[in-house]
Amino acid sequence: MKIAILPGDGIGPEIVAQAVNVLNVLGESFEMETAPVGGAGYAAHGHPLPEATLTLAKQADAILLGAVGDWKYDTLERALRPEQAILGLRKHLNLFANLRPAILYPELAGASTLKPEIVSGLDILIIRELTGDVYFGQPRGVRIATDGAFIGEREGFDTMRYAETEIRRIAHVAFQAAQKRDKRLTSVDKANVLETFQFWKDIVTEVHQEYPDVALDHMYIDNASMQLIRAPKKFDVIVTGNMFGDILSDAAAMLTGSIGMLPSASLDANNKGLYEPSHGSAPDIAGKGIANPLATILSAAMMLRFTLAKPEQADRIETAVKKVLAQGLRTPDIYEPGTTKVGTEEMGNAVVRALT
Amino acid sequence: MKIAILPGDGIGPEIVAQAVNVLNVLGESFEMETAPVGGAGYAAHGHPLPEATLTLAKQADAILLGAVGDWKYDTLERALRPEQAILGLRKHLNLFANLRPAILYPELAGASTLKPEIVSGLDILIIRELTGDVYFGQPRGVRIATDGAFIGEREGFDTMRYAETEIRRIAHVAFQAAQKRDKRLTSVDKANVLETFQFWKDIVTEVHQEYPDVALDHMYIDNASMQLIRAPKKFDVIVTGNMFGDILSDAAAMLTGSIGMLPSASLDANNKGLYEPSHGSAPDIAGKGIANPLATILSAAMMLRFTLAKPEQADRIETAVKKVLAQGLRTPDIYEPGTTKVGTEEMGNAVVRALT
Ligand SMILES: CC(C)[C@H](C(=O)O)[C@@H](O)C(=O)O
Ligand SMILES: CC(C)[C@H](C(=O)O)[C@@H](O)C(=O)O
Repeated sequence: MKIAILPGDGIGPEIVAQAVNVLNVLGESFEMETAPVGGAGYAAHGHPLPEATLTLAKQADAILLGAVGDWKYDTLERALRPEQAILGLRKHLNLFANLRPAILYPELAGASTLKPEIVSGLDILIIRELTGDVYFGQPRGVRIATDGAFIGEREGFDTMRYAETEIRRIAHVAFQAAQKRDKRLTSVDKANVLETFQFWKDIVTEVHQEYPDVALDHMYIDNASMQLIRAPKKFDVIVTGNMFGDILSDAAAMLTGSIGMLPSASLDANNKGLYEPSHGSAPDIAGKGIANPLATILSAAMMLRFTLAKPEQADRIETAVKKVLAQGLRTPDIYEPGTTKVGTEEMGNAVVRALT
Repeated sequence: MKIAILPGDGIGPEIVAQAVNVLNVLGESFEMETAPVGGAGYAAHGHPLPEATLTLAKQADAILLGAVGDWKYDTLERALRPEQAILGLRKHLNLFANLRPAILYPELAGASTLKPEIVSGLDILIIRELTGDVYFGQPRGVRIATDGAFIGEREGFDTMRYAETEIRRIAHVAFQAAQKRDKRLTSVDKANVLETFQFWKDIVTEVHQEYPDVALDHMYIDNASMQLIRAPKKFDVIVTGNMFGDILSDAAAMLTGSIGMLPSASLDANNKGLYEPSHGSAPDIAGKGIANPLATILSAAMMLRFTLAKPEQADRIETAVKKVLAQGLRTPDIYEPGTTKVGTEEMGNAVVRALT
């Protein structure tokens, strides 16, 4: 089995190195090949998603990505900026299902800005559609308005759209994920305003007929953003579109206060996937050896579970991570008085030790 | 000066009645005329925004609205549902600037789900553009896709768009509001993905040149939704589009834990405005006499300040509200042990007493 390793920018290379160490001690034989992406792709080949990197990603069975983005590249034209690599990988590989768990480890309850009773034991799964919506809809651009109240002047515009198949397939992923958990699914939309999301709601309701054991409810995005703050533990699985999912999944992650712990998976129809931490490239701490590698290590665990069909290896890694937390080891982002502050490498080594 | 009173549905009539009582004891001579809106409009005239209600709203100098929506009307076709009245009023009256303060009263700090040190003293102002964006852009609907990967099948679609004038005028409102506060403005966009919001960002940056005394920063919507949870007090004024503003303003309101306290204003280019509480119609508690009237009373205060040019009367009301809180009076939504639980009318009467 071949894994494409795309370290990317900022802290990406440091944290990915630790995840690779973990993969190497599992006793499996993975073929791993590394390629530059994001700012590193641009620096090496003049494009954030170089041809060779895309080819590798297509050939590989799974992709492990660090993070992309660095202030250095902020002045590039948009098509060359690091985040275009992420959008390109999603689109080219048809990675339409983004799974983002928001889990609060009991040891880290203090890290949240929310009161412990509101978030302790939090365990929700956000499923975000990743290849449709206003992210990719055509046409888009800047034009002279030819209708409406501002006819004749410049306007920026984009197209929000969801086709039936796109909604159906993400709904199936979500219902099936809910079946494996507490069997409750909340579909987040804005059906009271948007035609796209009235259509979304109608199709999700149809697909629900195939999953009578799952309780489905519909919630408007504005209300969902409130309920996540008011009573996040009431949710089990949330499914939503690309744009709303971008916002909600980051909010949910921040509820835990420990976004350095949260992995993510982006899957295609055959469970091939791209795995990456939920956090960003943190260029401000890059190279200092203090970044938290656990979200990336846990992303490797998700990869073993969803794409590489090695759930027992995934369990092993997750257990090892819990063990190092119980040992009191903490990178600075999750450090609290009374625990032991360690760097990226020490943390990675501790997970390796806990595994063997 | 003429005020249109639109009580609406659910708890709307109860809370508006208290705000009207407050307006009546100020010693000003306002002409007030009441008309049905939302479900009540549909029940009376077969449309959520009856002709006569719209005419009254246009004629009046200001509009005080309770809330719209009730489960009774959920099965109506979309064009007849209560919330269409809100969208219709905004569009017909050109109410493009929505001002939503998120303030945490020191007495109510315990109501928040966030830790006291994160939210105590919170005082941010969210300015949401209200008549553009994907809320109103044409074309929209359900059609057969004629391009893209799902050609030939049904798709729901909407158009996101912002014309230069629309961005410019809301930016001016936001910079001027920031000038009266801590002189810091955060413009929230998704310029890394959306053409509409790259254009938004460019225009806001241009308008900034006229306000060199205001510090402007730009933040992506996903990051903003995280930062609101991580460190909300770092914000002063936030300006954003209609869709992002819908989500962010509700999240910001919920940070306080006391959404029953938060007013809102929706203004046109001449400061004519519609004023309403930030919370909804709460049909579950309608008619029970327990709804919190303070957000509506504070909306009346905003009306005096922004539209009726009576800032000293606005101050009087706001001082009176603080006084009843200091007296320990609480409706059930903000009740805590050690305070005095009161109903809607008692709370309204207490504000009237504190005024006189
Ligand atoms: C970098 C950006 C294009 C991306 C997105 O908006 O999807 C990011 O925010 C994410 O959530 O992965
Ligand atoms: C009722 C609905 C159409 C409305 C909106 O989305 O604008 C509401 O959520 C609001 O924020 O006033």
